[in-house]
Amino acid sequence: MTTHSFLTENFLLQNKTARTLYHDYAKDMPIYDYHCHLPADLIARNYRFSTITEAWLQGDHYKWRAMRANGIAEREITGDASDKEKFLAWARTVPATVRNPLFHWTLLELKRYFDVDKLLNAQTAEPIYTQCNQALTTETFRVQGLLKRMNVKLVCTTEDPLDTLIAHRQLRQENIGISVHTAFRPDRALSIENNDTWNQWVNRLSELTQTDIQGVDSFLEAIAQRHSFFHENGCRLSDYGLETVYSDDCSHSELCRIFSALRQGHGDEITQQERLKFKSAMLHELAVMDAEKEWALQLHIGPLRNTNTRLYRQIGPDAGADSIGDQPVARPLARFLDRLDQNNRLPKTILYNHNPRDNAVYATMCGNFQDGTVGGKIQHGAAWWFLDQKEGIEDHLNTLSQMGILSTFVGMLTDSRSFFSFPRHEYFRRILCNLIGSDIERGLLPDDLKWLGGLIQNLCYTNAKNYFSMTLPAENE
Amino acid sequence: MTTHSFLTENFLLQNKTARTLYHDYAKDMPIYDYHCHLPADLIARNYRFSTITEAWLQGDHYKWRAMRANGIAEREITGDASDKEKFLAWARTVPATVRNPLFHWTLLELKRYFDVDKLLNAQTAEPIYTQCNQALTTETFRVQGLLKRMNVKLVCTTEDPLDTLIAHRQLRQENIGISVHTAFRPDRALSIENNDTWNQWVNRLSELTQTDIQGVDSFLEAIAQRHSFFHENGCRLSDYGLETVYSDDCSHSELCRIFSALRQGHGDEITQQERLKFKSAMLHELAVMDAEKEWALQLHIGPLRNTNTRLYRQIGPDAGADSIGDQPVARPLARFLDRLDQNNRLPKTILYNHNPRDNAVYATMCGNFQDGTVGGKIQHGAAWWFLDQKEGIEDHLNTLSQMGILSTFVGMLTDSRSFFSFPRHEYFRRILCNLIGSDIERGLLPDDLKWLGGLIQNLCYTNAKNYFSMTLPAENE
Amino acid sequence: MTTHSFLTENFLLQNKTARTLYHDYAKDMPIYDYHCHLPADLIARNYRFSTITEAWLQGDHYKWRAMRANGIAEREITGDASDKEKFLAWARTVPATVRNPLFHWTLLELKRYFDVDKLLNAQTAEPIYTQCNQALTTETFRVQGLLKRMNVKLVCTTEDPLDTLIAHRQLRQENIGISVHTAFRPDRALSIENNDTWNQWVNRLSELTQTDIQGVDSFLEAIAQRHSFFHENGCRLSDYGLETVYSDDCSHSELCRIFSALRQGHGDEITQQERLKFKSAMLHELAVMDAEKEWALQLHIGPLRNTNTRLYRQIGPDAGADSIGDQPVARPLARFLDRLDQNNRLPKTILYNHNPRDNAVYATMCGNFQDGTVGGKIQHGAAWWFLDQKEGIEDHLNTLSQMGILSTFVGMLTDSRSFFSFPRHEYFRRILCNLIGSDIERGLLPDDLKWLGGLIQNLCYTNAKNYFSMTLPAENE
Repeated sequence: MTTHSFLTENFLLQNKTARTLYHDYAKDMPIYDYHCHLPADLIARNYRFSTITEAWLQGDHYKWRAMRANGIAEREITGDASDKEKFLAWARTVPATVRNPLFHWTLLELKRYFDVDKLLNAQTAEPIYTQCNQALTTETFRVQGLLKRMNVKLVCTTEDPLDTLIAHRQLRQENIGISVHTAFRPDRALSIENNDTWNQWVNRLSELTQTDIQGVDSFLEAIAQRHSFFHENGCRLSDYGLETVYSDDCSHSELCRIFSALRQGHGDEITQQERLKFKSAMLHELAVMDAEKEWALQLHIGPLRNTNTRLYRQIGPDAGADSIGDQPVARPLARFLDRLDQNNRLPKTILYNHNPRDNAVYATMCGNFQDGTVGGKIQHGAAWWFLDQKEGIEDHLNTLSQMGILSTFVGMLTDSRSFFSFPRHEYFRRILCNLIGSDIERGLLPDDLKWLGGLIQNLCYTNAKNYFSMTLPAENE
Repeated sequence: MTTHSFLTENFLLQNKTARTLYHDYAKDMPIYDYHCHLPADLIARNYRFSTITEAWLQGDHYKWRAMRANGIAEREITGDASDKEKFLAWARTVPATVRNPLFHWTLLELKRYFDVDKLLNAQTAEPIYTQCNQALTTETFRVQGLLKRMNVKLVCTTEDPLDTLIAHRQLRQENIGISVHTAFRPDRALSIENNDTWNQWVNRLSELTQTDIQGVDSFLEAIAQRHSFFHENGCRLSDYGLETVYSDDCSHSELCRIFSALRQGHGDEITQQERLKFKSAMLHELAVMDAEKEWALQLHIGPLRNTNTRLYRQIGPDAGADSIGDQPVARPLARFLDRLDQNNRLPKTILYNHNPRDNAVYATMCGNFQDGTVGGKIQHGAAWWFLDQKEGIEDHLNTLSQMGILSTFVGMLTDSRSFFSFPRHEYFRRILCNLIGSDIERGLLPDDLKWLGGLIQNLCYTNAKNYFSMTLPAENE
Repeated sequence: MTTHSFLTENFLLQNKTARTLYHDYAKDMPIYDYHCHLPADLIARNYRFSTITEAWLQGDHYKWRAMRANGIAEREITGDASDKEKFLAWARTVPATVRNPLFHWTLLELKRYFDVDKLLNAQTAEPIYTQCNQALTTETFRVQGLLKRMNVKLVCTTEDPLDTLIAHRQLRQENIGISVHTAFRPDRALSIENNDTWNQWVNRLSELTQTDIQGVDSFLEAIAQRHSFFHENGCRLSDYGLETVYSDDCSHSELCRIFSALRQGHGDEITQQERLKFKSAMLHELAVMDAEKEWALQLHIGPLRNTNTRLYRQIGPDAGADSIGDQPVARPLARFLDRLDQNNRLPKTILYNHNPRDNAVYATMCGNFQDGTVGGKIQHGAAWWFLDQKEGIEDHLNTLSQMGILSTFVGMLTDSRSFFSFPRHEYFRRILCNLIGSDIERGLLPDDLKWLGGLIQNLCYTNAKNYFSMTLPAENE
C-alpha cells in the first residue's frame, strides 16, 4: 500500500518560528466552533455512524462535485449504489483532488480520527474502508467522542426559528462537557420565491407562537417571540444566507401591501423589485432584534445557488450545484449597515464574502462602521466554502491585516455538516502560524514570540470566546 | 554585445524536484496545440518568411502595444517604415518589457529557434536581424520545419463557417507528420452590429450551401450544413469570442421577427435588448449542434474590443486596442449552461475568462455542470491573452486546483497567429513543474514523482488528446 | 521598554541583490512627490507642530479607523480628549495593527524622524510622547526641515480652482530648496449633489474671475481662466476624485438646460441620469483644457465615500468612513478616453484604481490609448490609499509589468496630508528593489545590475521628473 510521509507534525509550517508558534501556542488551544451545521439531535443521541460512507459522503456536496468532475456516475455519488461502492468511487477520486483542500482534509481526517497514514486511492480503499468501519463500531467513535477527541469546547449549530430546540435543551441539562449552542437562521422568513412554501412556514409560525398573523406587524411579533425563545435557550447569534445584500427602501405601507399579497398567495403578482423591498425591510427588522439582544449577526453573502435545474429536480438544494456569484455589493452593503447605525441599532456583525475578489470591499467596509464600543465589532468573516483552503485563508488574513485589524478577528469555524471536519481548525492554525512565523523570519514583524504567540491564541480561541459570550462547559457546572 | 545567462536549462524551475519533473516528465512530451490562429494555407504552402519582421511583428498586436507604450511612433509599428526599421524599433523596446511575458517570449524564441543567446536591444539588433534573416532562408525554417522543431503533433486553427477548408483538406491528404485541424468559429453569424456586413455574410452562406435562406430556420439549417462539412473534415471543436455571455430568453417568434428585420436591413430599428436576444438564441442553437456531434465548445469571454476609434479606423480590428472587461457574468453563464443541460444538450465546454478576477467564478461554475460522463467535461480554460504569463498561469492553475479538479485539465494552447509561439508550451510546462515541485518540497504533496510526473504528462498532452479525440499523425497513416 | 531590531537597514530586502539595488541605486535618489495633500501655507510659514498628536493624529483617518476597530471611544480619537490622551490611545492601538501598513509606517516614522527605536505601545507611550514633543520644539523640526531631512526635491499639493495660490507664489519667490507645486483639483465644479454649496462655489468663481456666468459656456470660460492662472503659477497637472468614471453622452443643449436648472437652484428636479450627463460633459471639457496646456490628468477612481451618516454628521467628510467600491468601470473608462483621443485631445493621463481587483482592467486599458508620443503617456497610477502597503504595491507593480510596461512608470507618491509620510517612498523603493532583486536571483531577469539599477532609479525619480516637467529647485535659481 502507498504510504505518505507528508502529513508530518510540521505540515504547513515552512519555517522554524512557525513551528514554535504552532506547537507552543496554537496547537493546544480548545476549539470554539461558533458556526457549523451539525445536527444537534445526533449530538443529543450521541449517534454512532454505521459506515464511513454515511459519516463522510452522505450530504457532502464538496466531495460530490469532485467525483462528478472526475467522471464518476451519479449512481455512485448520490444514487442507489451501496455504501461500499460509493466509498470506492470516492477513493478513486481522491488522487485526482491533488491541490484541492479535499486532498488534505481527507488525509488529515483519516490520520487524526482513524490513525490511517496511507493515501486513499483505488489500491488502498478496501482495507481503509474496513479499518474505518471497524473503528466506528467503538464507543469512542460516537459523535460526542469525536468532538472531544478534537478538544472541542463549543459548537454552535444553526436552526430555523420554528425549531423547538429540544436537542439543545436536553444537551444543556446533560452537561456533556461540550457546549452546544444554536444560531437563529430565519432564511425561510425571507424565502418568498415559492409563495406556497413560504405561506406554510408562516402558518406553522402562527401555530407555534399562538399568534394571529394578520399583517406584517404580527408577523414580526411572532418572529420576535421565537427570537426571545432562542435567546432564553442561550442563542447569541443569528445567520443569513444571502445571494446579495438587500437594502432597498421600503415604506411600511409598501411592506404591508407586499405582505398581504404574499399571504393571499398572489406571489406571482409581486415584482422582482417588490421582492427585494420585502427582503430589505425584513432583514433590517431582524437585525434590529439582534441589536436589541446584543447578538452577533452573521451574513453569508454571494453564492449563486441551485444553478443546475436537472440536479435540483433530482436531488434538491445543496446538491453541489452552487457556485460563486459576482454581483456588486458595496453600495447595498453600506446602505444596510448605515441604516442600522443611524438608528443606533447596528449589532455586532460578521460579513462573510463568497467571492474572493470582494475581500478588499468587505475588509474596508467593516472599518466604516467600527464604533469603538467593542473591539472588532464589525468582522470580516473567515474564508468560507470555496475559500476554505490555504490560499483562500491566506488571502483573507492578508487583506484583513492590511486593510483592517487582524488582532480582533474572531477566527475560524467549520461551517460543516460533518463531525469529521474539525481538523479544519488545525489547518487554519497551521496556516496562521506559518504566516506570522514567516513575517517574523523575514523581518516584517518583531521577533517577540510571547506577544505574537498571544495574538495567535486570541485568534484561535480567546477573541471568539469574548466576542460571542456564549456559555462554556465549565461555566455550566 | 550583451549576453545573458538566465535562460538556462533550469529557467523557471526554482527547486530540485521541479527540475526532475520538467526534465524527466514534461520536456519531451509532444505538443498538442488545440487552439491557435495559424493560417492553414501557410502550412499547406510550407511558407518561408522573408524577414524576421514579417514573421514576428506583422500582425502581433502584443508587440505593437508594448512599442506604443514605449514611445515608438506608429510609422515604425504598423506604418510604412521598412522591415529593418520596424525590427530596430522593436529591439529598442525589448529591454523596456522587463517582467512582461514579451521579454521572456522574445528571448526564448530567439534561443529556441535561432540559437541567439543575447539580449535583444538597440546595441544587438543589427547582427541579430542579419542572423535571423539568414536562418529564414534555409529549408528547415519553412513553417512546417518550425513546427517540427518544437515537436508539435497537432495544431487546431479556427475558421469561419464559410471557409472551404482547402488547406486543411490538402494537408490531410499529404500527411506532413503534423495533424492540422480546424475549429468552427461562427462569430460572424452573431455579428449583427453591422447589418450590411452581416447580410453579406448570410448571402455568401446562402450561396455556398445552396440554401434559400427565408427565415431563421433555413439560416440555422445552412449553418448546420457547414457544421457537418467541418465535421466531415475532422473538426471536433468550435470557438466563440464573446464580450459577455448571451443567455437572454428569446421566443421563436421574437427570433423570427428580429431575423427578418436584419435580413431586410433594418438593423437600426433593433434594440440592444433584441440584439442580445438574437445572440442568445443563436448561441444556444449552435451549442446544440456541438452537443449533437460530440464536439467541444470553446467560449472566450470578456474582452472589451476595439476601444480606440482612431486606431480602428487606421488599422482595423486586432490593432492592439483591446483590453479586459468587467461585466458580471455568473448569472448569464449559469443560465446558458443550465438551459443546455436541462435539454440534455450540454456539449463538452471550455470556458476561458479574460479578467483574472473572475477565476473563482469560472472555476466554480464548471463544477455545477460536471455530470460524470467525461472527466473534466466542463473545463476552466487555460490562462489566456493578457493572462498568458507566469502569474496569470499560476493563478489559473491555483484556482482550478483549489476550487475544481486540476487532474482533468486539458492544458495549454498558444492561441497565437505566430509560428514562433510554441515555446509558450515550454513556458507553461516549466511553470507547472515548478508549482508541483514546490508543493512537494514544501510537504504539501507526497514525494511520489512517478504519480505526479504522470499527472504532469497528462496535463501536457494526454488529457487533451483524450478529451478532443482529434486524429493524430500516426493515426493518419 | 520593548526594543525592536526588525527595522534594520535591510528591512524588506529579502535577498542580496535586492540589498545592492537598494543601497547602491535607490536609497539616495531624491524624492519627487508629485501628488500629496500637504497644506502649502504651512510650508510657506515653515510651521512648527506643538505636539506629535497634532502632527500625527489630527486629520489622519487611517489611524482613526484603526483605533475605532480596536475599541477606542470616539472621544479619544476625534473628540475633546487632550493631545496626550489621544496619543496614548493611539499607542495602545499600535500593537493591534500588526501586518497593517500603519504598523510599519508608525515605526519607520518614529525611527527616521525621531530616532526612536522602540515599539510604540501602552508601556512605551509616555517617554516617546515626551521625546517627540521635545524634538518638535527645535528648528530642524519645522516643516521645511522635515522635508529636507527626507531629501524631498519637489512636492505637488492639490488646490481648488478658487485658491489664490498665495502660499505657492510666496514659496516660488523664496526658493527654499524644495519646489512646491500645485495641482488643479476642480472636484467642486462637479459636486452638484448639494445644489446650494455648488451655487456658492460658482458665485465665488464668478467674482474671482470677474465673469458674468450666464450659462455653461461662461462657466467653462471662468474655469479656463483659473486653469490659465494655475498654469502661469507652474501648475502642470490636475486631479479628480471620482466614485466612477463619467462618460455619458450629453448634448450641448442638454448641458445648458441642466446648468440653468442648477443655477436656479432646482437641483432637486434633476435626475440622477442628468447629473451623470453634467459630470460627463464637464469632465470632458476640463480634460480638454489639460490637453491643450500639456498637463497631466490624474483620475482617482472608485472609493465609496462618507458611508457612515452618523460620523459624517459628527465629523464631516474624510472621517474614516470611506471604503472600496465595486462598480464596473471598463466601458465608461474606455468611452471617456476614446472621446478625447478621437478629437486629438487626450492629455497625459494617470488612472488610479481603488479596488485592487480592477488592476488588470486599468493596466490593460492604459495600453489601448498609448500613442507613441510620450513613453508611458497613459499611466496605471501607483497603489493608492488602502492599496498603499506591501502586497498592494507588489500587486500593482506585477500587474503593470505583466500587462503593460513597467519601465515608463512614474513611480510613487505620498497622497498624504502629513509631513511625516515621506518614508512611504523608502517603503516603496525597498519593495521595488526586493521584487527586482528576487527576479534576478530566481533567474527571471538577467544579472545586470547596472541596467536594472538604472531602471530602478528611473522608477524612483527620473521618469516622474521627465513626465511632469515641473520646475525643480536648481532650475529655480
